[in-house]
Amino acid sequence: MPELRLNLITREWVIIATEKAKRPGEFRQKKDKKYLPDIVSACPFCPGNENKTPGEVMKLASDGGWKIRVTPNKFAALTPEGERQRINEGLKHLITGVGRHEVIIESNLHNTNLALMPQEDIADVLKVYKNRFIDIYKDPRIEHVIIFKNYGEKAGTSIEHPHSQIVGTPVPPMQVRHRIDETTRYFDNTGECLMCATVRSELAEGKRIILDTKHFVTFIPYAALSPFHIWIFPKKHEASFGDIKDEEIADLAYNLKTVLAKIYNGLENPDYNYVIRSESPKESGSEYFHWYLSIVPRVVQTAGFELGSGMYVNTSLPEEITDFMRRVKA
Amino acid sequence: MPELRLNLITREWVIIATEKAKRPGEFRQKKDKKYLPDIVSACPFCPGNENKTPGEVMKLASDGGWKIRVTPNKFAALTPEGERQRINEGLKHLITGVGRHEVIIESNLHNTNLALMPQEDIADVLKVYKNRFIDIYKDPRIEHVIIFKNYGEKAGTSIEHPHSQIVGTPVPPMQVRHRIDETTRYFDNTGECLMCATVRSELAEGKRIILDTKHFVTFIPYAALSPFHIWIFPKKHEASFGDIKDEEIADLAYNLKTVLAKIYNGLENPDYNYVIRSESPKESGSEYFHWYLSIVPRVVQTAGFELGSGMYVNTSLPEEITDFMRRVKA
Repeated sequence: MPELRLNLITREWVIIATEKAKRPGEFRQKKDKKYLPDIVSACPFCPGNENKTPGEVMKLASDGGWKIRVTPNKFAALTPEGERQRINEGLKHLITGVGRHEVIIESNLHNTNLALMPQEDIADVLKVYKNRFIDIYKDPRIEHVIIFKNYGEKAGTSIEHPHSQIVGTPVPPMQVRHRIDETTRYFDNTGECLMCATVRSELAEGKRIILDTKHFVTFIPYAALSPFHIWIFPKKHEASFGDIKDEEIADLAYNLKTVLAKIYNGLENPDYNYVIRSESPKESGSEYFHWYLSIVPRVVQTAGFELGSGMYVNTSLPEEITDFMRRVKA
Repeated sequence: MPELRLNLITREWVIIATEKAKRPGEFRQKKDKKYLPDIVSACPFCPGNENKTPGEVMKLASDGGWKIRVTPNKFAALTPEGERQRINEGLKHLITGVGRHEVIIESNLHNTNLALMPQEDIADVLKVYKNRFIDIYKDPRIEHVIIFKNYGEKAGTSIEHPHSQIVGTPVPPMQVRHRIDETTRYFDNTGECLMCATVRSELAEGKRIILDTKHFVTFIPYAALSPFHIWIFPKKHEASFGDIKDEEIADLAYNLKTVLAKIYNGLENPDYNYVIRSESPKESGSEYFHWYLSIVPRVVQTAGFELGSGMYVNTSLPEEITDFMRRVKA
């Protein structure tokens, strides 16, 4: 029998559709394998084409060149210049589109990706995330910062060169406000952070844990919204990603690399998104929120039901996906 | 300069990304045209294969055969048998997956679709929607009913035969509760229904109107979440789709056919979803909500930013899309 499971952070129910459920291996992708060289002359993110990106926000140097570069997004959704203004005219509410939108070029190699990179290099990428996250929040016009990755066309990018993005918006998204509201209510009811309670409960039950390291736990959410939806939670309470320490970064890099390599091997290099959900550094001491990283492989297509209800239909069993992910090599 | 526009129903901001914006015609699809016969022997929805669907909920007869059939979904997300039960164990909240999930087979022809069908036949489909909508709400285990259509693979279906779906869930989705909360707040603040106010304001401004008929107005939302996102609103206040009258159904069929034909011609038969957002017939007299139909062509891919923020980046200008939609032939 199908069941509905509640995601306590979004407060949305997910249908775990046992009648439609597939075995984990059935989500393997059938992609044409494509040979990619180290450097592609037409790629704006490859070494030698630095003038094709608009400016340089920062870089990590390596052997006379660079290993990571951050640039403003050439096709930015929001513009860094101008004043944040609100204009209200009847039912039309507008904010001028100021904000920040940067690209983190994760490697000088065109043909690598986080699943294949050494753990140390992933740690460097995460350090750059932290730097940009803290820095963008210093802009007084910015109220929320989102770090995310689009990998592959189904995940929203046609750029092959390994990269992620960071966006600072001039208003807190309603989705974010709802989540903070839900975790605050949980705290009101119990005196405990919802994510801290989730870590404890998942570790105690053990059925959905993929990795359990010193600082992090990687698991399939009880109410996973889609097959192979994965959460990486810091074990210690921490509201803001801006507070992550070097030792924790190394451990997060291990968790991220391992789980992305397992997805790469187990599902034949599927497209995916991930996102870091975090409070601002200004809310560093908050008891009500706890940052985490959420990975969503794009192995299924959402349809009208999801659009119309906000509820997801997950055609896999979180516990079976966990078993598969434990067994597949990293 | 980009701008953020507020969707007052979802209370979510949409980035209208002028820097990334494309001309409306650039969203045209490059699909391989495929010859489809009237009847496909392997299609479970074609005449002659009635035994491949599990039972028959209702049908409209035509010339010794049928023109519309409703059947339970063979791969139902929720099951019609069993008791609705809640089981709470610590952080795990579960509802047994009881509910209703039916398929509305819209035609006995495999190779047609709503953009090509006569208006009278679309009116018949809408009458069947109304029948099933009211009937499913009679099930005491059902708390919300969603009518939706997936057209094409990007919209979540691989079935070519024209069909739509209706799902009754054993719990009201949180997304739906948030919308009702927002429209109720608007009513508290103004003493007026938000959708009634939107109809008046859009008609007065006129810049986003595609069709204005006796009972309906079809327009591009001010804060359209994606290119060619379209709303069809009844002009008269009506909380529940279950109250629609025959004369209104004929007019809705005209609006729906016209706009789907314009999309079909203007964008070369793109994939799309639509959904009817409505209160239950039990809330028939509610002043706080107003049903409507929302169409989302799948001409762009959502990415990590949308996942992580709930905000959409729309790479088109709603007013330019309106001009294009007015000009393209139906």
